[in-house]
Amino acid sequence: MKWFDTHIHSEGRSVEDLRRMADAGIESAITCAFYPIPPEHPETLIDLFRKLEIFEVKRGEKAGVKIYPALGIHPRCIPPRYEVVLPAITRGVAVGEIGLEEGGEAEVKVFKAQLRIAKENDLPCIIHTPRNNKEVITEKTLEILEAISFPEELAVIDHLSPSIAGKVLKDRYYGGLSVQPGKLTSLEALTIVEEYGPERLMLNSDTGFSESEMDAVAKAGSLIAEKLGRDVAEDVGMKNAKKFFKV
Amino acid sequence: MKWFDTHIHSEGRSVEDLRRMADAGIESAITCAFYPIPPEHPETLIDLFRKLEIFEVKRGEKAGVKIYPALGIHPRCIPPRYEVVLPAITRGVAVGEIGLEEGGEAEVKVFKAQLRIAKENDLPCIIHTPRNNKEVITEKTLEILEAISFPEELAVIDHLSPSIAGKVLKDRYYGGLSVQPGKLTSLEALTIVEEYGPERLMLNSDTGFSESEMDAVAKAGSLIAEKLGRDVAEDVGMKNAKKFFKV
Repeated sequence: MKWFDTHIHSEGRSVEDLRRMADAGIESAITCAFYPIPPEHPETLIDLFRKLEIFEVKRGEKAGVKIYPALGIHPRCIPPRYEVVLPAITRGVAVGEIGLEEGGEAEVKVFKAQLRIAKENDLPCIIHTPRNNKEVITEKTLEILEAISFPEELAVIDHLSPSIAGKVLKDRYYGGLSVQPGKLTSLEALTIVEEYGPERLMLNSDTGFSESEMDAVAKAGSLIAEKLGRDVAEDVGMKNAKKFFKV
Repeated sequence: MKWFDTHIHSEGRSVEDLRRMADAGIESAITCAFYPIPPEHPETLIDLFRKLEIFEVKRGEKAGVKIYPALGIHPRCIPPRYEVVLPAITRGVAVGEIGLEEGGEAEVKVFKAQLRIAKENDLPCIIHTPRNNKEVITEKTLEILEAISFPEELAVIDHLSPSIAGKVLKDRYYGGLSVQPGKLTSLEALTIVEEYGPERLMLNSDTGFSESEMDAVAKAGSLIAEKLGRDVAEDVGMKNAKKFFKV
């Protein structure tokens, strides 16, 4: 089977690692903008976007993975004068990775500004939820989405845990299942798909700057195919992603 | 034996790859500034330097490799208003990777500006030589060094080939032996060390954004130890680097 990894940070991985993804059957991946330290200059993110569009796409081609950039300002790397960056975020297949980490005022402002631009431009958004204080921050995230009437079909709430999956999906947003050591196991991803159905769920590996399993999506997808059937696995491992990202 | 890899681009490698270096006995490495596309903004390089100083050093610590940043403007990524970047290049253990790629006017200007700063600050320089037109560009590089009376003991001319090694070492510069597929084989590195002696030669892997052998320095060093003795291997694989970079 072929797979779509809907959230990676390809910059943190070698070209050999990208080839390992291809070998595992991962055909396409969304690489999300992120800078591993808070940049002092907004221009750094503008060049980062260019790097994703030019260099990372080319590295993917070499390795056999179709890489699509998602461009945005992650809450952990908000630069001064972030407004300078905003016009560039519409160039990706999605706006991302955006969202809240601790939920402070600056984060909320940057998140809202990006959501408004995404809405105006009919662009899907990849929305981060943090490891710490996940339920509270997710609640705040959903309130912001609702307050600006953000279209549910354009938002994937990512890094779902069993504790937030129900609420996210009940509100009709998409949900991202990040299968990776420290996040979900394949079995936990399977359990969430089993409980809520595959309609609005998508698999990803969130592979990047930390230690990563490059074939996480293929492994989780195969387990889902085995336990819940091939159609379900195709939905969460490929079809939903193609529909959501319009690729 | 323990090794010092005097020229890598750690940003292109995963944290697991850095651990592979550590496992191969590579204790220390110089990570050289490079941006894989020409940046549109000089600020991008300033944040890149911070990324090397903060994030790459930390990734190295996690993996068990002591990483020292070399900061500079590579000839393949000269930004507009490059002068903005210059004050920051003195913060590394070395100025690098600098030099000429095609040898045009802009490259020469940026190279000279950085050499002058390195000389004023008594900083060692890691000086690139290109794959194409290597002899001619190296000749031009050495003329520039001579014209500004750059101290020989502060310059390593890197990516030596058998065709330029003699000239570089005769002029009393240090020489870098980049052992990597497409550059030197271990055997070629050995041959150069055998011919010219170990006094001013240093091993590196130039590992980075392309496919790379993480243990290249350990492999070449071991071959040199076997054929030319442990002392020679220690010189080119550790001691010369410590002396040259003053660490």
